[in-house]
Amino acid sequence: MTAPQDNPLPKLGIIAGGGALPARLASAAQTAGRAVFVVKLDGHANDADLDAYPNVTARLGAAAKILDAMRTNDCRDVVLAGKVKRPSFSAMRPDWRAAKLLMKVGMKALGDDGLLRLVGEELEREGFRLVGAHEILTDLAVPEGVLGKVSPDDQAMTDAKHGLGVARILGQADVGQGCVVQQGLVLALEAIEGTDEMVRRSAQYRRDGVGGVLVKSSKPQQDKRLDLPAIGLTTVDEAHQAGLRGIALLAGGTMIIDREAVIARADALGMFIIGLRDADGKDGHGV
Amino acid sequence: MTAPQDNPLPKLGIIAGGGALPARLASAAQTAGRAVFVVKLDGHANDADLDAYPNVTARLGAAAKILDAMRTNDCRDVVLAGKVKRPSFSAMRPDWRAAKLLMKVGMKALGDDGLLRLVGEELEREGFRLVGAHEILTDLAVPEGVLGKVSPDDQAMTDAKHGLGVARILGQADVGQGCVVQQGLVLALEAIEGTDEMVRRSAQYRRDGVGGVLVKSSKPQQDKRLDLPAIGLTTVDEAHQAGLRGIALLAGGTMIIDREAVIARADALGMFIIGLRDADGKDGHGV
Repeated sequence: MTAPQDNPLPKLGIIAGGGALPARLASAAQTAGRAVFVVKLDGHANDADLDAYPNVTARLGAAAKILDAMRTNDCRDVVLAGKVKRPSFSAMRPDWRAAKLLMKVGMKALGDDGLLRLVGEELEREGFRLVGAHEILTDLAVPEGVLGKVSPDDQAMTDAKHGLGVARILGQADVGQGCVVQQGLVLALEAIEGTDEMVRRSAQYRRDGVGGVLVKSSKPQQDKRLDLPAIGLTTVDEAHQAGLRGIALLAGGTMIIDREAVIARADALGMFIIGLRDADGKDGHGV
Repeated sequence: MTAPQDNPLPKLGIIAGGGALPARLASAAQTAGRAVFVVKLDGHANDADLDAYPNVTARLGAAAKILDAMRTNDCRDVVLAGKVKRPSFSAMRPDWRAAKLLMKVGMKALGDDGLLRLVGEELEREGFRLVGAHEILTDLAVPEGVLGKVSPDDQAMTDAKHGLGVARILGQADVGQGCVVQQGLVLALEAIEGTDEMVRRSAQYRRDGVGGVLVKSSKPQQDKRLDLPAIGLTTVDEAHQAGLRGIALLAGGTMIIDREAVIARADALGMFIIGLRDADGKDGHGV
């Protein structure tokens, strides 16, 4: 084994989907003196942000190539981050390795996160250590309580709690983890369209009177080391434009990307951001 | 009491929301020799279809007016039918009667169907007999099995069953009862936007390969005498345009409006329509 003083932190492999998170992780790891290697998922990863780091591009279905790249580049720790849209079987063009994996599980019954879990399990079987994004960027996780200067009123809290219950129920079925609730009414449910799209849609169905709340949760069975639901600056802006009054997040079960900026933006717009535990007292840690 | 030969069937009161169903009920009742009186819900009911029958228009919030109209017109049997969009409290402008009712329940926590249940209960408390639309138009209810000439293949059946599970879970939370599933992936979930809107949206997220399935269920706690989820000709057309291969309906827990025409259209488009029981063997009868 290498002496710790020569190599204090093992190299970090980043399997990168869409959004800002993968580049944030790469930057945070490097700042902490850690070498990184990035596998950019073709059609998902943001090339412009990631080309500053050693990288290779691979299709989601190219399991052998991804595993080889991680091994050749000596990445023992691997983090999966960023949005990945599950393609159809044919669009995925699985290599022999991916095909074998998919056969084992059966593509037919594979939910949205099932694919991610599969990749995570395979990495561990191959001897890699799966690391959660929140272990690299420790301010990603959402704590309990009001995060900014604005607090929800009674109606907003009722809506937030109702939405959290609905979102958790959705999660049980391995579908979306978000919804918009206004005055007790669920205006929109998130499937695979993504949070921003759902928020925009909700504006068409809003009622008169006080605005609604965006609620994000995670699935009860969600592996926290895989991609947790995340919000960022865009989410706050979209929510504001849709007439929402705030955002409620499952404490410990969701992430905020660019926390300081997100809270400052919400404050400026007069919106609240709150971390809530489940009705049964659970947070996203599954304890 | 009036002699049966003079008045074989008591007059039917129809509280009419949107869509084609209220007029179908009025016509079927009249054909059966039954007098009807219609309360057209302002902003919801289809005036053109209903003005052929004795009627009055009332706001959804005008509970006293609705009850008085039913009583004055000697309607002992009352059916609630057609889509009703729950307005905000202020837009509803409740009269004293409706306000009293709403106070009792609390507007805050009132889900989408909560309002309908409330109206149903109040009618019964006032001595009316609540009748289900399927008791007037007996071919509305969906039986088990393939209804047309086209049968779902294995993938479509897997999608249909998955969707039924998801839709029932949604129903537990008193939110929508529909979803679109393609190759195991839930493309869209229905909240209050309505089935047609959800189906149109799903087309944006469809994957390559075989098309998906529209699934409609009812809520486990749904009172069958109140408005059950329904599909009609428009639904079939929208589903076809969105690239879906068929429609799966909870047997006994959903309705088809214009059954013969709907099946003929589906056959012509090469689409299947199937009535399914729940995974646990239950149908919508709650037995």
